[in-house]
Amino acid sequence: MKAAYLQFEPRFGEVSSNLRAMQDLAANQAGEADLLVLPELASTGYLFQSRDEVFDLAEAFPGGPTADCFTQMAFDLNAVIVGGFAERSGDQVYNSCALVRPDGSSHIYRKAHLFLDEKDWFVPGDSPFEPVPAAGTLIGMMICFDWYYPEVARLLALRGATIICHPSNLVLPHCPEAMKVRCLENRLFAITANRTGRDERGDRSLSFIGMSQVVDPGGQILVSAPPDGDHVGLVEIDPRLAEDKDVTGRNNWTRDRRIDLFGDLV
Amino acid sequence: MKAAYLQFEPRFGEVSSNLRAMQDLAANQAGEADLLVLPELASTGYLFQSRDEVFDLAEAFPGGPTADCFTQMAFDLNAVIVGGFAERSGDQVYNSCALVRPDGSSHIYRKAHLFLDEKDWFVPGDSPFEPVPAAGTLIGMMICFDWYYPEVARLLALRGATIICHPSNLVLPHCPEAMKVRCLENRLFAITANRTGRDERGDRSLSFIGMSQVVDPGGQILVSAPPDGDHVGLVEIDPRLAEDKDVTGRNNWTRDRRIDLFGDLV
Repeated sequence: MKAAYLQFEPRFGEVSSNLRAMQDLAANQAGEADLLVLPELASTGYLFQSRDEVFDLAEAFPGGPTADCFTQMAFDLNAVIVGGFAERSGDQVYNSCALVRPDGSSHIYRKAHLFLDEKDWFVPGDSPFEPVPAAGTLIGMMICFDWYYPEVARLLALRGATIICHPSNLVLPHCPEAMKVRCLENRLFAITANRTGRDERGDRSLSFIGMSQVVDPGGQILVSAPPDGDHVGLVEIDPRLAEDKDVTGRNNWTRDRRIDLFGDLV
Repeated sequence: MKAAYLQFEPRFGEVSSNLRAMQDLAANQAGEADLLVLPELASTGYLFQSRDEVFDLAEAFPGGPTADCFTQMAFDLNAVIVGGFAERSGDQVYNSCALVRPDGSSHIYRKAHLFLDEKDWFVPGDSPFEPVPAAGTLIGMMICFDWYYPEVARLLALRGATIICHPSNLVLPHCPEAMKVRCLENRLFAITANRTGRDERGDRSLSFIGMSQVVDPGGQILVSAPPDGDHVGLVEIDPRLAEDKDVTGRNNWTRDRRIDLFGDLV
């Protein structure tokens, strides 16, 4: 299968234009993708000024323009789409991503580990770290700062994920290296789709690091993006490689793991 | 406090000469150290040909030349020594390391995750991942391939370790980068002391990658060694930095960790 990330710069609050930008990029450069990952909060931008502002931009899924767009993209590309958006659910707002299949069926993951001022804007997610069947394999989702807690990727791997889709709005420099370790220690693929550019709101601004990437179960970067600029990275991967949990001829990821000694971990 | 690693090339089976080499290097270059970490299996070398050979070279602790040497080094340097050796305990042999204080008191850690043919030579360790008080702080121990399982460093951190001492005989290239992530994700220091050179035994040989390092809680390498050659890396560190578990002004390592969602981890 062909896995891809789409890196671009959303303009804050311009939902229609952001969705169109992703559709155009995907149509032009991701036509062959079977799985395409978009950034975190791809339709709204990131640097909100208040919880009210997030609430006004947030959308139900399905039921809003982002859901419609992701569903159309999945159909047009005949690909699984995973992308981030601000999710309104009743009175709550989550920093979520949706996985949408070509047939329009979908799953939502709500970010568990909120970063900095996201705590003012969103409710912490309540999703289990549970992979879902899609594109003929099991796909896990996590969002941006979730990378920092190894338990997230670990649980997805223990529950059978072969690919982690990782919509991001990274501002710190550590994540691209750390995701190589997440892949290596869990023997799976990861697709990090990051945004680029800068959000300027009032007296605040925030820059994002780009460097989207696809990493394989050996911790090797298969394709990666520069720090700036729109970029679609597309690469052939075989998810079955992530089902082989032999680390060496005599070391197996599952069997060697000393859970008998891991008592107080949770 | 001053933390250090000692990197050198043990000669297989030449216990007295290996111990003397470490004593000389430490006396000449690690005189200021408060904590000095030596490689895995530092007194025997690595590439055994049989379990009988390991058994013959293995030593009780205390009670053998390695224990005597580490204890003497701790006294002479007025430093905590952590070093690896083949431990005989009754009929069993473990791939162990000892932590020895200047007053001669000691703790043993037995490697939990054995790599490749170590499974022919040693029994898997039964030590809890529990830091011990030393050098005015709490020090955790893990050995070489234990790095691969994030649970090991995680448990040591959750139990209060500020420094992980990591005697190693690394042959694969991933660990130096991965230890930066272990430090970052747990907000602690790590001292990896690796060996260099090559063991040649019968028709087999194995090369080791050197690149010993001290890493801080921000994932920065403070001092590191080249791939080859004897090297003592000595650096001032403040273990209290590892007690500060704030990741950002609004993110705390402990409080933000979503253990409510980590159910099936063990």
